[in-house]
Amino acid sequence: MRRALELAAQGLATGVNPRVGCVILNANGETLAEGWHRGAGTRHAEVDALAQLDPGAARGSTVVVTLEPCNHIGRTGPCAEALIDAGVARVVYSVTDPGQHSCGGADRLRAAGIEVQGGLFANVGEAFLADWLVAARLGRPFVTLKWASSLDGRAAAADGSSRWITGDAARLDVHRRRSASDAILIGTGTVLADDPALTARDADGVLLPRQPVPVVVGRREAPASSALFAHPQQPLFFDGLDLPGLLADLHKRAVRSVFIEGGPTVASAFVAAGLVDEYLVYLAPTLIGGPRLALTDIGVAAIGEQRRLSIHSLDRLGDDVLIVARPLTP
Amino acid sequence: MRRALELAAQGLATGVNPRVGCVILNANGETLAEGWHRGAGTRHAEVDALAQLDPGAARGSTVVVTLEPCNHIGRTGPCAEALIDAGVARVVYSVTDPGQHSCGGADRLRAAGIEVQGGLFANVGEAFLADWLVAARLGRPFVTLKWASSLDGRAAAADGSSRWITGDAARLDVHRRRSASDAILIGTGTVLADDPALTARDADGVLLPRQPVPVVVGRREAPASSALFAHPQQPLFFDGLDLPGLLADLHKRAVRSVFIEGGPTVASAFVAAGLVDEYLVYLAPTLIGGPRLALTDIGVAAIGEQRRLSIHSLDRLGDDVLIVARPLTP
Repeated sequence: MRRALELAAQGLATGVNPRVGCVILNANGETLAEGWHRGAGTRHAEVDALAQLDPGAARGSTVVVTLEPCNHIGRTGPCAEALIDAGVARVVYSVTDPGQHSCGGADRLRAAGIEVQGGLFANVGEAFLADWLVAARLGRPFVTLKWASSLDGRAAAADGSSRWITGDAARLDVHRRRSASDAILIGTGTVLADDPALTARDADGVLLPRQPVPVVVGRREAPASSALFAHPQQPLFFDGLDLPGLLADLHKRAVRSVFIEGGPTVASAFVAAGLVDEYLVYLAPTLIGGPRLALTDIGVAAIGEQRRLSIHSLDRLGDDVLIVARPLTP
Repeated sequence: MRRALELAAQGLATGVNPRVGCVILNANGETLAEGWHRGAGTRHAEVDALAQLDPGAARGSTVVVTLEPCNHIGRTGPCAEALIDAGVARVVYSVTDPGQHSCGGADRLRAAGIEVQGGLFANVGEAFLADWLVAARLGRPFVTLKWASSLDGRAAAADGSSRWITGDAARLDVHRRRSASDAILIGTGTVLADDPALTARDADGVLLPRQPVPVVVGRREAPASSALFAHPQQPLFFDGLDLPGLLADLHKRAVRSVFIEGGPTVASAFVAAGLVDEYLVYLAPTLIGGPRLALTDIGVAAIGEQRRLSIHSLDRLGDDVLIVARPLTP
């Protein structure tokens, strides 16, 4: 399964389809073939592995796959069917497929007399597929909220100036994560105040190969001269009155992950609505004080209503600190 | 010198005198005697080490000491004199004595024909004596400012409720540090809102052996029923209009370290006045939003005026994070 996860990690981290890896073993536990999914429209991992073998060579084999084999006919045939046809003896998978149309693969395999075991290394498998699982289970993209602040929680000085609070290493990290997201989301306030390009760039300012779709939220209009109109991807605009609707819309457009970069009004609205799956807090070793906060009001009146998180990782990035946190699941 | 620092660390971390360690070596580099200072009124480290030896046994020896030998007559005689009388050949020390009355020991030793070398492992020696050096150089206690906040910089919910943001491990760490401080300082606002005991306690709530002097700052009066009046140490009261004067007063009372625990008004006043030597920021993985900030206004109008710090350490304490930071020296 470790090897299958390694193979899965070679797939595309973005798009509508999950990253899946597959290893086919003979009765002696020797590897016959390996496969992985390379993105929507290409072969699923199991079929990719089977395709490495001569017809009949998979008969009696054990198939180790990171996600429950699918049971629906999409752009490719159902994997459960392909495994049955190949005559495999046993299927071991990690994560159960939560898809409305694709689930049921395990039952189908069992009905065909194949031995099936699910949930192997399920924690590891689920963590690996966290964003895709959120998308599949909730019908919305995985939402990451990022902010950079001083140790006292300020995103800017009283006059609004904020360049630069965090250092080079933190900024590069942000751009790398932008590039790994399907969409980048900001409020019109930030457009009007900072006129950001919303592109993902390397240390030399050169555009990275993948660019997230810019999404702008708010009722004010972005000036025609805004830098975001020069973005390689067509920007999308929403009034922000219906955040779940906004995310559902993005999901329909095959956006699996959204990277929210603020400002405080938009960030606080997503937190208050309980729509954030991961927080990236870049803390600079500085104190600013005053009124410009990274988060404003998130609807917490008494301490019992605080939004508890758990810290996923804690790292130093240059002079700064990056805290990655996720909502504490009750 | 490493051994001398180890010996020094056995001394009292509090009180007016520095922690000093001393090792006496013969011509072959073998240890003849070790000594350290055990607190005001007791023998200085050099004299403590010499006292282990028979008269004449230190003749021609090398004395390794963490702080420049003193040159004044306090409750004990000057160490420089004692070393000269003992006929030592060489003195090596780490940190130069910044004391107005005690400095000049190196010059005096040299005048007596002793070979003197200062500044050995000065960085380590100075870090070890950081609080005492601040007190000796600036004539005021070493000031530590502590706050506990959510990841978004809030110290309480909108209604003022704040128990508990951080967990057990963070609270124990605070109590341990209280106990290692000569004074604990809060504002009258905190007295009126929380009525804190200001004692240093262990996990079972039992008082630790050393208790800091409670210092209350503000123009409002603490009610006679306040818990702080039950503190084992007599509380001190200041109006807070003259913070340097307040610190000078504490220094005169032999307070070498002050632990500021807030609230936000007092904390921000010390930050704005540039009187904080070390920050302890306990960050809980939670979001609160709203108006109750750990720091309010610290006089930063534009980003160029931000108070840059450097991170001294970054640790996880239970579910929480402790960031220790110090002002970035220009």
